[in-house]
Amino acid sequence: MTSSSKLLFWLVGQAASLRRVVELAFGRLAKPPQVDNLPHISILLFALATATAAPNLMPWPSKLVQNEGVLAIDADFAIDTTTCADPRVHHAIERLTTRLIRQTGLAMGIKPAAHSTLVVQCSSGADSPSLNDDESYRLDVTPQQAHLTAAAPAGILHGLETFAQLVVAGQTGFEAPAVRIEDRPRFVWRGLMIDVSRHWMPVSVIERNLDAMAAVKMNVFHWHLTDDQGFRVESKKFPRLHQFGSDGHYYTQAEIRGILNFARERGIRVVPEFDMPGHATSWVTGMPELATAPGPYQIERSWGVFAPLLDPTRESTYVFLDAFIGEMAALFPDPFFHIGGDEVDDTQWKNSPRVQAFSREHGIRTSVALHAYFNGRVSALVKKHGKIMIGWDEVLRPGLSKDTVIQSWRGQESLAEAARQGYRGVLSFGYYLDYLKPASFHYANDPLSGQAGQLTNQQASLILGGEACMWTEYMNFETVDSRIWPRAAAIAERLWSPRDTTNIDSMYSRLEAVSAVLDRLGLRHRSHEDLILNVMAGDRPAQPLRILADAVEALGIVGRRDVRHYTSLVPLNRLVDAAQPESQQIRELEQAAIHGRYPELKVAFTQWTVNRALVASLAGNDFLVSELLPLAADLSTVGSIGLSALKYLEQDQTVPEKWIADQRKTLAGIDTAKLEVSPAAVRPVGLLLDILERKSSQPTAAGPASAGGVKP
Amino acid sequence: MTSSSKLLFWLVGQAASLRRVVELAFGRLAKPPQVDNLPHISILLFALATATAAPNLMPWPSKLVQNEGVLAIDADFAIDTTTCADPRVHHAIERLTTRLIRQTGLAMGIKPAAHSTLVVQCSSGADSPSLNDDESYRLDVTPQQAHLTAAAPAGILHGLETFAQLVVAGQTGFEAPAVRIEDRPRFVWRGLMIDVSRHWMPVSVIERNLDAMAAVKMNVFHWHLTDDQGFRVESKKFPRLHQFGSDGHYYTQAEIRGILNFARERGIRVVPEFDMPGHATSWVTGMPELATAPGPYQIERSWGVFAPLLDPTRESTYVFLDAFIGEMAALFPDPFFHIGGDEVDDTQWKNSPRVQAFSREHGIRTSVALHAYFNGRVSALVKKHGKIMIGWDEVLRPGLSKDTVIQSWRGQESLAEAARQGYRGVLSFGYYLDYLKPASFHYANDPLSGQAGQLTNQQASLILGGEACMWTEYMNFETVDSRIWPRAAAIAERLWSPRDTTNIDSMYSRLEAVSAVLDRLGLRHRSHEDLILNVMAGDRPAQPLRILADAVEALGIVGRRDVRHYTSLVPLNRLVDAAQPESQQIRELEQAAIHGRYPELKVAFTQWTVNRALVASLAGNDFLVSELLPLAADLSTVGSIGLSALKYLEQDQTVPEKWIADQRKTLAGIDTAKLEVSPAAVRPVGLLLDILERKSSQPTAAGPASAGGVKP
Repeated sequence: MTSSSKLLFWLVGQAASLRRVVELAFGRLAKPPQVDNLPHISILLFALATATAAPNLMPWPSKLVQNEGVLAIDADFAIDTTTCADPRVHHAIERLTTRLIRQTGLAMGIKPAAHSTLVVQCSSGADSPSLNDDESYRLDVTPQQAHLTAAAPAGILHGLETFAQLVVAGQTGFEAPAVRIEDRPRFVWRGLMIDVSRHWMPVSVIERNLDAMAAVKMNVFHWHLTDDQGFRVESKKFPRLHQFGSDGHYYTQAEIRGILNFARERGIRVVPEFDMPGHATSWVTGMPELATAPGPYQIERSWGVFAPLLDPTRESTYVFLDAFIGEMAALFPDPFFHIGGDEVDDTQWKNSPRVQAFSREHGIRTSVALHAYFNGRVSALVKKHGKIMIGWDEVLRPGLSKDTVIQSWRGQESLAEAARQGYRGVLSFGYYLDYLKPASFHYANDPLSGQAGQLTNQQASLILGGEACMWTEYMNFETVDSRIWPRAAAIAERLWSPRDTTNIDSMYSRLEAVSAVLDRLGLRHRSHEDLILNVMAGDRPAQPLRILADAVEALGIVGRRDVRHYTSLVPLNRLVDAAQPESQQIRELEQAAIHGRYPELKVAFTQWTVNRALVASLAGNDFLVSELLPLAADLSTVGSIGLSALKYLEQDQTVPEKWIADQRKTLAGIDTAKLEVSPAAVRPVGLLLDILERKSSQPTAAGPASAGGVKP
Repeated sequence: MTSSSKLLFWLVGQAASLRRVVELAFGRLAKPPQVDNLPHISILLFALATATAAPNLMPWPSKLVQNEGVLAIDADFAIDTTTCADPRVHHAIERLTTRLIRQTGLAMGIKPAAHSTLVVQCSSGADSPSLNDDESYRLDVTPQQAHLTAAAPAGILHGLETFAQLVVAGQTGFEAPAVRIEDRPRFVWRGLMIDVSRHWMPVSVIERNLDAMAAVKMNVFHWHLTDDQGFRVESKKFPRLHQFGSDGHYYTQAEIRGILNFARERGIRVVPEFDMPGHATSWVTGMPELATAPGPYQIERSWGVFAPLLDPTRESTYVFLDAFIGEMAALFPDPFFHIGGDEVDDTQWKNSPRVQAFSREHGIRTSVALHAYFNGRVSALVKKHGKIMIGWDEVLRPGLSKDTVIQSWRGQESLAEAARQGYRGVLSFGYYLDYLKPASFHYANDPLSGQAGQLTNQQASLILGGEACMWTEYMNFETVDSRIWPRAAAIAERLWSPRDTTNIDSMYSRLEAVSAVLDRLGLRHRSHEDLILNVMAGDRPAQPLRILADAVEALGIVGRRDVRHYTSLVPLNRLVDAAQPESQQIRELEQAAIHGRYPELKVAFTQWTVNRALVASLAGNDFLVSELLPLAADLSTVGSIGLSALKYLEQDQTVPEKWIADQRKTLAGIDTAKLEVSPAAVRPVGLLLDILERKSSQPTAAGPASAGGVKP
C-alpha cells in the first residue's frame, strides 16, 4: 500500500466521523456531491484546507471557485451601474438594496459612496424575457469589489440574486465570500404553475410568488386561469365568463397587466392557460351555449373531473374561441399560449345525438379523435393570433402541429415519445407539489432520465425543461406559499444546475438557507403556521399546537381527498393546513440521532411528553383543538419511548431485544395517518432504536445485560 | 357567625385555590377587577354559576351582560346594512368580512344568505371624525342574530371591532357568545403618536398601525412628521425642506392624502406635528436662512437635543411659517395642528447678538419668554389658517391663547395646572412606549389621577384623554410594531373603559388575545422576531436564538442610550431588537410556578440548559451570534437552578437554607442587563425559590430534612 492509499483507506473507514468533523468545521461543504462519493480524498483534503464554508447558493452555479477572504457589506455599500442602460436592471438593483437594508439593518445609500462595492456591466437586451435569452452571467467577488457581468439583462437579474444569497453575517459584520462564479442554466424553461381557479389567489399572492421564483432563477410563470371551479380572468368581449364564473374573484385586465409587468421586471415569462374543452364548467356557467349539453350550469365546488365539455361540433364554438383567444393573445405578450386539453370525460359527447351525427359525418370514430379534431381547430386559431400552442400530454395526437409544446404530467416516457416525434416538451410529472412529497423526491426527478435518457442529443434538445405544478384543491391564498416553498427551490435547482448536482444532504442544508431568504422576501411559507394555530388556540398562547404541528407532516392530495368531503367551501384551517409538508424540526432531530447529539433529542422528547397536558388544557370548548387530543397522546407516547431509548444509550447498556421489539410495535401502531397528517416524530425515535439494536447485537465490554436489562 | 359570612370566611381562606378552580373552569373571568377584591362573594358565585368564559374584549366595554348560548358564525354569515347609508360603514363591513374569512377559513359571501347574522343600524354622520362624535354603540348578540345600533357611524365602527373580537372557535364551529353590550368611551381623545423622523416609517407601517388603532378603538393618530433627523412631508411650496431634510424618505402629498383617507375610514383623526422652534435641524438643512445661526446644517444622525433653532426675531421666519402652515393646514383636514414646542436649547439664541438686541428692544428678558413670543406668533398663524394649536408642556406660558391644547409629557401635575388655568389637555406622561415598560405600568397611569384627581368636574372635563407616544430612536420600520403592540392596547383600554377596570391579570390575559387579533390583522409585532433571528443565525435554523430571545426582555431608551454609540445609521438587528419588551413565555412560566404546573417549567428549564451548546454551534464565524454566548451561559445556569429547585419540590423535601441563599446569590449575579436586554428568565426560578423557602420554614409531616438535605 502506498501511503496515500493507506490514508485513503483510513479515511474511508473513518468516513462517518470524518464527515462529522468536516460538518462541524465548515458547516456545509462546497459542492457536497463529492462528499457522499467517498473516497474522493482530494476534495476532502481541499475542504479541510479551506477555512471558510461554501456559500449557501440555490440553485448551485455551473462553476464556482471559492477564494480567500470576504467582501465587507456595510453602510457604504454602493452599486455602479454606469454601463447599464436597461431599466429592469436599475429596478432590480433598487430591490436588491432594499433587501440588503432589510437583512443588514444598515442605512445604505444615504451617504454618497466613494467606492462602488458592486460593479454591474451589461449590454441592453430585448424588452421582454424570451426562450432565447442568454441567461448566463459571471460574478467575481474579491475582498475589494464585486463584478457582475452578463451579455444580457436576464443574466444580470440572475447574478444579482446570486449576490443576494452570498451576503451573510461574518466575524465582524456582514460580508460576501470571495468567489468566482460562471453560471448558466441547464434548461431554458424553468417554470412554476399556480392553479388560481380551485382556490382564488389574490394579486399579492401571485406577486410574492414571482419574487420567490426570481430568487431561485425560475423563468416561466404558468398561470392556470380557468378550470371547473373558477374563471379568473376578465374578458371585455365576453364579460359573462368572469361575471358568472368567478364568484367575483377574478383578475381585471389592469391587474393582469400589472402582474405581467411585475414578472417582466424579474425576467419571468407568463404563459396563461385556458383549459378546454374539459375542465370548463366555469366557462359554461355564464355561457351555457358553449357546452355540449344544454345546462344550466353552476360553478363547480367539488374536486375531480366533471361532465361539462365545450361543444366541438358547432361552428359558433370556434367563432367564440377566435374572438376570445384573440382578446387574450393581445393581453398576454408571451408567444406561448396554453390550451390545457387534459382529462376529457366524454360522457356529454357520447350522449349527444348532434355530436354523434357530426362525428359520423366527419369520419371521427372515437372521442379521442374528436378531441384531436377540436385541438386542431384551436391550434389554428392560436396560430392565427400569433401564438405557439402548448397543451398537456393528451393533445399529442397524429396531425398535431409540429411547433406545439407538450407539457407532460404522465412521465418522461410521454415526453420522450413527443421528442422522438419532433415535438418540444416540458416535464411536470414528478413535479406535482400538491402531493406534498419530500423535496428529495422532486430533486431526484430529472427531465432527461428514464426513457428521456435514451434520446439522441438532437431529440434531447427538444426537452425545454420542467415546471413545478401547484394544483390548489387543498391550498388557499393563506397556505399556498407553504405548499410551494421551499420545495419548489429544489426543482428550480434541478432545472438550472449541472446534472451531477445531486447530493441530498447538501440540497437540504441549502434549502433551509433559501427558505430563510424567501422568508425575508415576504413569502408566507413559514409565517402562515402561526396565523392558523393562533385561531385554533382561541387567542390563548398557541405554543402547544406549534409543538404538535412541528412534529407532524401535512399529507397531500392522496392523504386528504377521501378523508372528509372537501369542496372549495370547506375551510382550510386545521392542523394539516398549518403543518409543513416536511418538518424541519424532525429532520434536525434525525440528524441529532445519527450524530449522537442526545441533549437536543432529550429536550424535544420531554416537550412531547409534557405537551399532551398542555393541549388538553387548551382544548376546552374549542372544536379545532379537541380533535387534536389523540395526536397529542401519540406524540407523548413517542416522546416517552425516545426518553427511554436515550437512557439506555446514555448508560451505554445493552437493551433486551424484546424491549426494542415492543417499542417498534408501539411506534408502528402510531405511524399511520391521522387528521390528514403523518406522525413524522416516530422517525428520529426509530433511528435511536436502530442504534440500540446494533449495539445489542455487539456485546459491550461489560458483557451482555442481565435478563430484563435496566429499567429506563 | 351567619352561615353566609361563614361561607365568605371559608372562601377568603381558600382564595388562592378557588381562584385556580375558577381559572381552570372558565379560562378567564368576566370583568375580573372584582376577583382581586375578594371577598366579593356574589360575583364569585355568579362566575361559578355561569358556564361560559367571558369574551376577550379589549378595551373592556362600559357595560356587558353575558347571556346563555352562542351565535354560530358559519359560511352563511351575512350582514344586513339596509338602513346604513354611510360608505365608511360599508367599507368597514367589507374589511370585517375579509377578516372573518381569514380567521375562520369559511367561504363567506359566496352564496346568497337567506338570513342576516348581523343587522347594523345607524344614522349618517359627519364625513370626517371629530372630537364631538358620538362614539357610543349597542351590540346585542343572541343565538339567533346580532344587532348593532349606534347614533353615528363612529359607534358602528367601534361596534364592528367588538363583534370581531367576540368571534372564537367553539364546540362545533366558530361562534360569538350571546352578550348585551352598551359601550361608550371614557375619554374623547385616545391617541397614538408615531415619530417617523428619527427612523423612517414607510406608508405600509402607518397603515397597519392605523388598523391596529381601530381594532382597540383609538381615535387620534398624532403624526410626528419633523424632527432633527428628518423632515418627512413633501412641501410643494418649499421643496427644499423635504429634498434636503429627508434622505429621500418622505411622504408625498398624494401618499399623505391616501393615509388620511385610510384613517378617516377607520374613524381616526390625524393630527400632524411640525416641531418648532427646536428639534428643527432637518428644516434648516435645506433652508438655513430659517435658523438662528448661519449654518450650513446637515441632517442630524445622533439622538438628543440639538442646537439649531428657528430664528424668532426675523419677520421672514413668520412669512415662511404663514405660507408653510397654510399649505399644511390645507393638506390636513383635522382642526388640531401640533407645533411641538418642546426641548428648546437656547444656546443659539443666547449667542446671537441679533436675537439679544431684538429681545432687549421688545422687553423680552429670558429665552423662555422669547419662546413664548414665538409661540404667540405661531399661534396666530395657526388660527389664521383655521386651526387650533396643540403643543407640548413647554408652550404653557402666560398669554397663551385659551383654545390651545396642552400635551403633557411631564406629568398629571402640569396637566392639572393647565386645566386650572382653563386649558384643555392630553396626557402622554406615563404613556411613553419607548421606555419599554410593562403594560401594567402604563395601565396603572390614569389621566385623572395624582393632582388631576383633585380637579373640579368642570376642570376635569378639560382633560380630553391621552396619547401613547412612540419615539423611534431605537426602533425602525421593522421593529416598531413590537414596541407599540400589544402594550398600547392597555393604554387604549385605560382611555376607553370605566375607571374601575383595573385588574392586572385580566388585562394581561385579554392583552394576549388582542395581540393575536392584531397578528391576524397583519401587524408585525410578533413576526419581526423571526426575521431578525434568521439573519443572525446566518440561514441556519434560528430556534436556539428564539429560545434566548423569549427568555429575555428588551430594554428601552434608558437601557440602550449609553451602551453603544447609537445613531440613525446603526443597524437595529441584534437580540434586543428581536426580543419583546415583555416576554409572554416568562409570564406563563411565572404563572406555572405560582400554580404548581411543574412539567411546563421542566421543559423550559431543560431547554435553557441545553440551549447553550446549540447557540455555541451556531456562533461559528457569525459576529451577531458570538456576542450572545455569555447570555446563553447565564440562561443555562438559570435553567440548572430551576431544575434543582423542581427536584426539591417534586420530592417534597425541605431544602437547606444555605442552598437557597447560594442560588439567590447566583441569580442576583445574573440579573443585570447584558447586551441591552434583561434576563427575565430569573423571575420564575426566583418564584420557585420563594416557594422552597416558605416550605423550609414550615417543617413537613416527615420532619425536617437531614443535614445537607437531598442532592438535587
